[in-house]
Amino acid sequence: MRNAHVLEYSVSFGDCDPAGIVFYPRTYAWFDRAFHDWLRNFGGHGKICQTLGAVGIGLLEAKAQFRRPMRDGDRLRIALSIEEWGRKTLRLGYEITVAGEVAAVGGELRGLFKPAGDAIVASEIEVLRKLLGEDG
Amino acid sequence: MRNAHVLEYSVSFGDCDPAGIVFYPRTYAWFDRAFHDWLRNFGGHGKICQTLGAVGIGLLEAKAQFRRPMRDGDRLRIALSIEEWGRKTLRLGYEITVAGEVAAVGGELRGLFKPAGDAIVASEIEVLRKLLGEDG
Amino acid sequence: MRNAHVLEYSVSFGDCDPAGIVFYPRTYAWFDRAFHDWLRNFGGHGKICQTLGAVGIGLLEAKAQFRRPMRDGDRLRIALSIEEWGRKTLRLGYEITVAGEVAAVGGELRGLFKPAGDAIVASEIEVLRKLLGEDG
Amino acid sequence: MRNAHVLEYSVSFGDCDPAGIVFYPRTYAWFDRAFHDWLRNFGGHGKICQTLGAVGIGLLEAKAQFRRPMRDGDRLRIALSIEEWGRKTLRLGYEITVAGEVAAVGGELRGLFKPAGDAIVASEIEVLRKLLGEDG
Repeated sequence: MRNAHVLEYSVSFGDCDPAGIVFYPRTYAWFDRAFHDWLRNFGGHGKICQTLGAVGIGLLEAKAQFRRPMRDGDRLRIALSIEEWGRKTLRLGYEITVAGEVAAVGGELRGLFKPAGDAIVASEIEVLRKLLGEDG
Repeated sequence: MRNAHVLEYSVSFGDCDPAGIVFYPRTYAWFDRAFHDWLRNFGGHGKICQTLGAVGIGLLEAKAQFRRPMRDGDRLRIALSIEEWGRKTLRLGYEITVAGEVAAVGGELRGLFKPAGDAIVASEIEVLRKLLGEDG
Repeated sequence: MRNAHVLEYSVSFGDCDPAGIVFYPRTYAWFDRAFHDWLRNFGGHGKICQTLGAVGIGLLEAKAQFRRPMRDGDRLRIALSIEEWGRKTLRLGYEITVAGEVAAVGGELRGLFKPAGDAIVASEIEVLRKLLGEDG
Repeated sequence: MRNAHVLEYSVSFGDCDPAGIVFYPRTYAWFDRAFHDWLRNFGGHGKICQTLGAVGIGLLEAKAQFRRPMRDGDRLRIALSIEEWGRKTLRLGYEITVAGEVAAVGGELRGLFKPAGDAIVASEIEVLRKLLGEDG
């Protein structure tokens, strides 16, 4: 496991729910935001997909644990780490901290989706690994 | 495990991302929507929290597996099941189907959060279980 | 002006902000949702765009007035009306009611966007008008 | 009219729709984000409302014009200007630029909402104007 990217983000009023804390699905939007921000170092999601003939580097699974409520004005530090490259999968880890305290941790299992007739299927991910400079 | 509630929802254009499929964090918003729709049978989240002196029935953990892409116009059937009541936790399961095919499955671990000074803490959940008619 | 379509939608907890009322940008998402739901009668946005060689029936302007706060559990009735077809524009009106009371009104000015090199430009909208059965 | 605050924000993949451009309601979320970011100079929305006995500095109207499509990776500069203080209203203007080019402009008409029985009503806004150091 290796820390690959860090993104800062400020929680805003509209990210929060009537309980006054972050509406939890937003947390995954921030995982996704950190992932896409990381990809920008390599041309961004759109260009990478074009290069690889893919429709997206999409989700197979995602999970999160919520340790402390996040609120309007909190300055988040979202750290993305690469946990494991499989044959057709990339496992990513996320940690969100506020002022050094862990607010949420989570993970995503992503695949490289390519068109297959009317459907889209997860294909060999080695080409993405190389493009991201992650091979051995 | 018992199927407690079912909610229908139509995917709209704005729920989808540049890959033309549902932006994955939306899936969790629909889990949450099904949960809150279920609570309406018992007065709704706001009234229940008022009755129990709570600030929210919030998240400790959440996870999902994405089996098939969901798209603009798909009519979702979101089934909520009660998986387990713990001392301070309620474990819920979700299954989203489109035309009988499973598109996503997932789960939430929720707690009954009450104010404790400046913080909020998960408290004994038995009172919620009774209010929802789920005891024994 | 003619009422073209009506959509029902239930406000959920996650649509609301820390003030306990709908986070206002959501209102526009519901205007857009009503528009796309209307398009489904004609094959849906994706198919229509494919037929017309367009990338989207997108926004030039949008506005709203908020008359009464909408809250978790409110059952919205979103009425879409066609206000005016211009040479390159379609003006739509929206009215959201809850139990017969007007909660919000608004409008969108949309164009039919087609690719033009690296850019996208609003093009003659007559073809869309015909496709929607709206010509004279 | 006076430029009161500027906020930077990077468009992410999840802010965009199947047409590959920003889903337009997000634009209003960024207006709102700029407003709340400005309020942080004065303690933030929550604290200000507590001080003034208000439930929110909420919306009466909002509008926007979309000049150029915004895309994944675009770095937005959102400028907030104070256009007019009314007896019960504050009119704000917004301009979003990307690399110096205007992508969207818009405005919000806000009120200071206070509880009045079961309802909430727009009240005299002079107290907010003073708190924000905007008087004379």
